[in-house]
Amino acid sequence: MKTKKIVLIRHGESVWNRENRFTGWTDVDLTAEGVAQAYRAGDAMLEMGLFFDRAYTSYLKRAIKTLDCVLDRMNLDWIPVEKSWRLNEKHYGSLQGLNKGETAEQYGEEQVKLWRRSYDTPPDPLSKDDPRNPRFDVRYRNVADSDLPLTESLKDTIDRLMPYWDNVIFPSLRESEGIIVSAHGNSLRGVVKKLKNISDDDIVQFNMPTGIPYVFEFDDKYNLVNDFMIGDPDEIAKMMKTAAAVK
Amino acid sequence: MKTKKIVLIRHGESVWNRENRFTGWTDVDLTAEGVAQAYRAGDAMLEMGLFFDRAYTSYLKRAIKTLDCVLDRMNLDWIPVEKSWRLNEKHYGSLQGLNKGETAEQYGEEQVKLWRRSYDTPPDPLSKDDPRNPRFDVRYRNVADSDLPLTESLKDTIDRLMPYWDNVIFPSLRESEGIIVSAHGNSLRGVVKKLKNISDDDIVQFNMPTGIPYVFEFDDKYNLVNDFMIGDPDEIAKMMKTAAAVK
Repeated sequence: MKTKKIVLIRHGESVWNRENRFTGWTDVDLTAEGVAQAYRAGDAMLEMGLFFDRAYTSYLKRAIKTLDCVLDRMNLDWIPVEKSWRLNEKHYGSLQGLNKGETAEQYGEEQVKLWRRSYDTPPDPLSKDDPRNPRFDVRYRNVADSDLPLTESLKDTIDRLMPYWDNVIFPSLRESEGIIVSAHGNSLRGVVKKLKNISDDDIVQFNMPTGIPYVFEFDDKYNLVNDFMIGDPDEIAKMMKTAAAVK
Repeated sequence: MKTKKIVLIRHGESVWNRENRFTGWTDVDLTAEGVAQAYRAGDAMLEMGLFFDRAYTSYLKRAIKTLDCVLDRMNLDWIPVEKSWRLNEKHYGSLQGLNKGETAEQYGEEQVKLWRRSYDTPPDPLSKDDPRNPRFDVRYRNVADSDLPLTESLKDTIDRLMPYWDNVIFPSLRESEGIIVSAHGNSLRGVVKKLKNISDDDIVQFNMPTGIPYVFEFDDKYNLVNDFMIGDPDEIAKMMKTAAAVK
C-alpha cells in the first residue's frame, strides 16, 4: 500500500534573514534566493512524484509565497490551501525588527542566547500600544485578544499551534493521500516535536533547514513509519548547522 | 457608508494566447507579460486602497497565478482563497489546442465565428477516450461525471457557473467588505451578464479586457449602484477591441 504523507517545508531566505534581524510576525518578503529555493523544492518533489490533496500555511507572506512557488512547479496550484495564524513564526516580542548583532551588544550574548535557545523563556513583550502589536494588523481582526501574543517562548508557539494541528491538519490526512505544510522554523519545530515525540530539551537543538522538504510517512493506522528530508545529506547537514548558528 | 465591492479580473496573457491557440480547460501558464499585467493590476488596486476579505478563482494556473500576483502586491496574500472548477474557462471541446488560424482554414471562417461568437452553439465535443477529457485529470476527481463537459457553449459555461455564483460567491458578500474573483473571458462574461442583467445577444459582444480590474459597488441591500474599470479609458477601449478581434 502507498503510505500517506505529510511534508513540511520551512520558507527560504527572507529579506530580514539576509539583514540578520529578528522577524517573528513581521510580514517580510522572500529574497530572490528564497523564491529560487522554493522552486527547487517544488522541482524536487515533482520529480519524486509526490502528490498533495491539500496544503496549509501561515498568515505570513514568506511562507505563503514559498507554498505558491512549490505548488506552481508541481502543477498542484489548484488544491485547497488553508491559512492560519497558528502556523505563524514564534512572536519575538520587543526584539522584532532588531538586528541580532546589535541585540547581543545591548543585552549581552548570554541573554540573547537564552531568548533564542530556551524552550520557555520569552523575550520582553511588546507594550499594548506598540505599533508592532498584532492587534493593529487587519489580518488578525477575527482572532480573540486572549489568543494574540505580545511575545512568545517556543513553548508558547507550540501551545497555540497544537489545537490547529490536532483538530484540523492531522485529521485531514484521513481524506488525503498527501498534505504539505509551509511554515516557519519554530512552528515547524512544534510539528516535528509532536510527530517524533521529541523532548522539550531536544527540540531546541533541532534546526529545520530552509527550503528542504521534510517527508513523514504513515501507515493505515496513522502511525509514523518513516521520515526523511529530500536533498543531498551532506548539504542538508551543512544547512542545519548554519541554521543553528544564525537563528 | 462605504460600499461593498466585487472586483473581477481576467488573467493576463498566457502561453497559448501568444500562440493563438484555443485554450479552454488546458492548463497553460502565464507569459512573463501576463505576470507583469497581474502585478500592475495589484499595484493599481493597492494605490486605490481597495481591500478584500476573500478571493475566488478557477482550477486553472493562469487565473490562480494572476490572483497570487495581485494579492502579493496588495499584501492581501493571507486572505482565504477558494478555487472552483465552475469558474473555469469555457470548454472548447475538440478545438482545444488547435491554432485559431488553422481552424479557420479547416472549418471555414463562418463556422469558427459561430463557435466563438454564438451564445449557445458549442464546438464538436471531445470523444470520451480523448486524453483531453477532463475525466482523466486528477483535479476533477471529485466532480461528478454528469457535471464534467466534453465541450461547452457560452450558455453551458454560464449554466454551470451560476449555482456557484448564486450559492457561494455572491452570498459571501454579506460577511465581506470586498471580494475579488480571478477567472477567464467566458466565465467572467457570465458574472457580468448576471450583475448587469445583460441579454444573451449582448453578452457575446462584451469583451472583458485582460488584467484590468472591473469593480462593482453595492448598496446595503446588495443592489448594484456603480461599476467601473481601473485604468486609462482609452487604453481599456483599445484592449476590449483587441480582445474582440482575437478571442
